[in-house]
Amino acid sequence: MSATTFTRPHRIRFSECDPAGIVFYPQYFVMFNNLLEQWVDELVPGGFAGYIGEQRFGLPTVHLEADFKAVSRMGDDVVLQLEVIHQGTRSLKLALSCTSLEGELRMQVVQTLVTTSLDTHRAIDIPAALSAALNASGEAP
Amino acid sequence: MSATTFTRPHRIRFSECDPAGIVFYPQYFVMFNNLLEQWVDELVPGGFAGYIGEQRFGLPTVHLEADFKAVSRMGDDVVLQLEVIHQGTRSLKLALSCTSLEGELRMQVVQTLVTTSLDTHRAIDIPAALSAALNASGEAP
Amino acid sequence: MSATTFTRPHRIRFSECDPAGIVFYPQYFVMFNNLLEQWVDELVPGGFAGYIGEQRFGLPTVHLEADFKAVSRMGDDVVLQLEVIHQGTRSLKLALSCTSLEGELRMQVVQTLVTTSLDTHRAIDIPAALSAALNASGEAP
Amino acid sequence: MSATTFTRPHRIRFSECDPAGIVFYPQYFVMFNNLLEQWVDELVPGGFAGYIGEQRFGLPTVHLEADFKAVSRMGDDVVLQLEVIHQGTRSLKLALSCTSLEGELRMQVVQTLVTTSLDTHRAIDIPAALSAALNASGEAP
Repeated sequence: MSATTFTRPHRIRFSECDPAGIVFYPQYFVMFNNLLEQWVDELVPGGFAGYIGEQRFGLPTVHLEADFKAVSRMGDDVVLQLEVIHQGTRSLKLALSCTSLEGELRMQVVQTLVTTSLDTHRAIDIPAALSAALNASGEAP
Repeated sequence: MSATTFTRPHRIRFSECDPAGIVFYPQYFVMFNNLLEQWVDELVPGGFAGYIGEQRFGLPTVHLEADFKAVSRMGDDVVLQLEVIHQGTRSLKLALSCTSLEGELRMQVVQTLVTTSLDTHRAIDIPAALSAALNASGEAP
Repeated sequence: MSATTFTRPHRIRFSECDPAGIVFYPQYFVMFNNLLEQWVDELVPGGFAGYIGEQRFGLPTVHLEADFKAVSRMGDDVVLQLEVIHQGTRSLKLALSCTSLEGELRMQVVQTLVTTSLDTHRAIDIPAALSAALNASGEAP
Repeated sequence: MSATTFTRPHRIRFSECDPAGIVFYPQYFVMFNNLLEQWVDELVPGGFAGYIGEQRFGLPTVHLEADFKAVSRMGDDVVLQLEVIHQGTRSLKLALSCTSLEGELRMQVVQTLVTTSLDTHRAIDIPAALSAALNASGEAP
């Protein structure tokens, strides 16, 4: 399996910025959560809403490390990227980044998520549909 | 001048939903604020960020009436719409709505915004660039 | 039954403000939702979390009208107030306001909420515990 | 100088929770930003709003590491704690935590913030008023 990479363009919104006119840093985590959703939407049948809502699986974060390198301002066009850097039995390690169109790294996160049952909030093996999609997406065509 | 209408598709995100699994209603106003930004981005040179950040104009809401007709759930695909229903000297009256792809009205807002100077927070005439764009957009080609 | 009134002091937070340095208006609705929770916490056994989480009742907003009279800035000390202005069989009409310590009205909302079942998202009669508490709280001591 | 510790009780709000009924993790960073504000409010004349708004100083995060140990649910009573674990010339290193009343650690963050000028977004020495307050607060009475 090779790494899976997923990118989406994003324009920094007024609602994401603080009185200093720059992204309020918790909003980066909201942007990345939305990116994760879009990625799962494309990976598995039923998408993220099906994964969470009908199948009652969770994907909570257990650890993250974030570096804030440069500010993003309201109206900036950026690229959000998600890359799977490790796939465990019950966890995924993701590298996430926000970069300007000119290639300036604004911030980056390395984040470990575990697959859980929403009924027990306990870790379970990566569900079959997600696991199959992850392995397929890394294969050569 | 005829009315200006602007629509964008949107998928309801996990981050917009509450423990009942439906949109937390203040998030509708965030969605509409983002829609307003996208609309101004297309209307005036420099976009919303230029209007607010460089030109120091504001566009605060002074009155709104909202009706919530049906719930929106995580993962739902909806259409967000903005229509100018009245253009005053120093104000705009907008009709905003969120509708499912099948045409079910989820919620709607009628909202009055005034154009202000961000330095004084006082009302000013609609800035020339915005006024010109609003009038042009309603003309027949 | 006379009206129920509930007030709480609040300091406007950085996280509630926008690049103009004033409250981002959807945040007023978050403040009022928190106020509603605090009010229900004091009214019924198990509080709002019990009402929503264990008893599976909802309290969604079906209509609101808001007037924004003056801006609130980061650091401002304000008073948030909730008053029941009408109690129906399956609904409550609330008047909510945000006022500075000096008595300047910043914004006000009149909001209609219905009591629902979270399982069906349909209206139900006001649950007995909430109804009893509302009627008791308006009585003379 | 000994470490400065600041704690505040908090009840987990509906608006902080996600469709899984637990805290949406970016909301922990909002809680901690509010805690930081309350701490600065008590440390320096003019408080956080004066520090940011009038004096035009910033306090952005440059690095953080977070561990999520146990879920927090709507209605949970928790203690939020901030401790200065290192004071540099132009930076502060904070340990932040969210713990249940029974002492269960829910999540913790180690976070490095730098003092900046909001006009240049560049690092500056810790402003005199903040530095004096930090050093005084660690002294024996």
